[in-house]
Amino acid sequence: MDEWFTELHGLNASDDIGLTFRIKEILYSKKSAFQKIEVYQTYGAGKMLVLDNAIMFTELNEFSYHEMITHVPMMAHPFPENILIVGGGDGGVLREVVKHLGVRTLELVEIDKMVVEVSKRFFPEVAKGFDSPLAKIYFEDAVKFISKTKKEFYDIIIVDSTDPVGAAKPLFEVDFMQKVKWAMKEKGIGSMQIGSPFFDEKNIVSILNNLKEVFSIVMIYVASIPFYPGGLWSFAFFFFLFDPFTFFRENVCLKMEDAFKYYNYEIHKASFMLPSFVKRYIK
Amino acid sequence: MDEWFTELHGLNASDDIGLTFRIKEILYSKKSAFQKIEVYQTYGAGKMLVLDNAIMFTELNEFSYHEMITHVPMMAHPFPENILIVGGGDGGVLREVVKHLGVRTLELVEIDKMVVEVSKRFFPEVAKGFDSPLAKIYFEDAVKFISKTKKEFYDIIIVDSTDPVGAAKPLFEVDFMQKVKWAMKEKGIGSMQIGSPFFDEKNIVSILNNLKEVFSIVMIYVASIPFYPGGLWSFAFFFFLFDPFTFFRENVCLKMEDAFKYYNYEIHKASFMLPSFVKRYIK
Repeated sequence: MDEWFTELHGLNASDDIGLTFRIKEILYSKKSAFQKIEVYQTYGAGKMLVLDNAIMFTELNEFSYHEMITHVPMMAHPFPENILIVGGGDGGVLREVVKHLGVRTLELVEIDKMVVEVSKRFFPEVAKGFDSPLAKIYFEDAVKFISKTKKEFYDIIIVDSTDPVGAAKPLFEVDFMQKVKWAMKEKGIGSMQIGSPFFDEKNIVSILNNLKEVFSIVMIYVASIPFYPGGLWSFAFFFFLFDPFTFFRENVCLKMEDAFKYYNYEIHKASFMLPSFVKRYIK
Repeated sequence: MDEWFTELHGLNASDDIGLTFRIKEILYSKKSAFQKIEVYQTYGAGKMLVLDNAIMFTELNEFSYHEMITHVPMMAHPFPENILIVGGGDGGVLREVVKHLGVRTLELVEIDKMVVEVSKRFFPEVAKGFDSPLAKIYFEDAVKFISKTKKEFYDIIIVDSTDPVGAAKPLFEVDFMQKVKWAMKEKGIGSMQIGSPFFDEKNIVSILNNLKEVFSIVMIYVASIPFYPGGLWSFAFFFFLFDPFTFFRENVCLKMEDAFKYYNYEIHKASFMLPSFVKRYIK
């Protein structure tokens, strides 16, 4: 077998551009109740997880996404204790959160149990966060879950979802964001992936506008992720009181630097410094 | 016609990963004495220049590469007057340099005259730097050219070459770098593209080592370039006295900010802040 898997850039970008991988073997391909789940053995990038034809990650480079959606909010908070991960069924964000000392409660709410099972089976290095005795996993709709949580409980809420289509669409709407606000402490910080700065301008602006209806301040930060369209990805950082820098724990970053492949104290700052074309359209 | 052009990542990366573009029309395809030159009309990214199967740029995104290889050294220098561009036959770097006031001499040495002709014909927005009355264009081998220049004449030398194979290979070797040193003022600054931080580790380390044999300090900076392998690209910044920050003309950056789509005073600083995996292998 010598076939290629191609992900077209889709969304606001064009379906006339794509990333392509030579495939050794299809290791898994099934439809869950929510999406098509596929695992490919690629020649160039190890195993690859694909949901509804969109590359989630490859073994070669899953670190930059998982580190950047996690440690930027975690390190900006002086004492993050109660953590909620929305989505993140592959376990990558969980693995990053448990690197931090001082976490007291750690919950993950994932709508699709099959993603967790597939990740545990094919990506043990990503899924190993599930082994933490702290981690409580809920398989349900995040919008429903967060409606039932305690008021102002979470220090950090990380929304690690697929693109704003299909099952993940509600996570990008104002109704859900209001529930996130309800569940998050006033000193809490949230992060979420919001798309490609080069290709998803329309979506990014619309998601930021939704967040701004709810949170005092919404910022955007970026990270290099080779196998996402355009190679650069953006995240929203939203909060009421704790901005990315005032309580930034630079010393903890330095102490933990061996634990990270992408993130470090300089990257924390650099990730908020945006190319001019992005600064213009988010203004 | 409904075909695709695929660039495999090649070099230290794998030929099992590629970027692919749906093609409306092949506008140009000829072999020069040095390389295969192709121009494609793509559906998703405008016209695209391809040299020896490697994407040089698309109309949609040529700005980040051309701005970043040019303005980082130009803005780090307090008074850049005598400028040399090695390669850069498409004219993109030339276009960026002429945005700066105070330039007194501006020379470009390109081995392949056909690249200049093709760029003028198909990419007038990139090639428009050639219209500058300052610009002197030499069609010859850069290694020979630089052997004949005045000693310690240039303030800025920008090496805008193709990858370190084929015609461009000598530009990455110590012999050429020694000639660059000879031609550059002690207060001069050089920049050159050195590959993908994700995929070209071996090449990058070797090029930096060559530069270090000649220059007092060699640094690395990065920029997001969607259609280069991995979406992140690296540049060497080499000098004897003027580091990237001490004489950095932040005020000029701010005054000129409307002239740039990618570069700005924050990006200048951010581009030297490197992901941990890069910091480790360049140590």
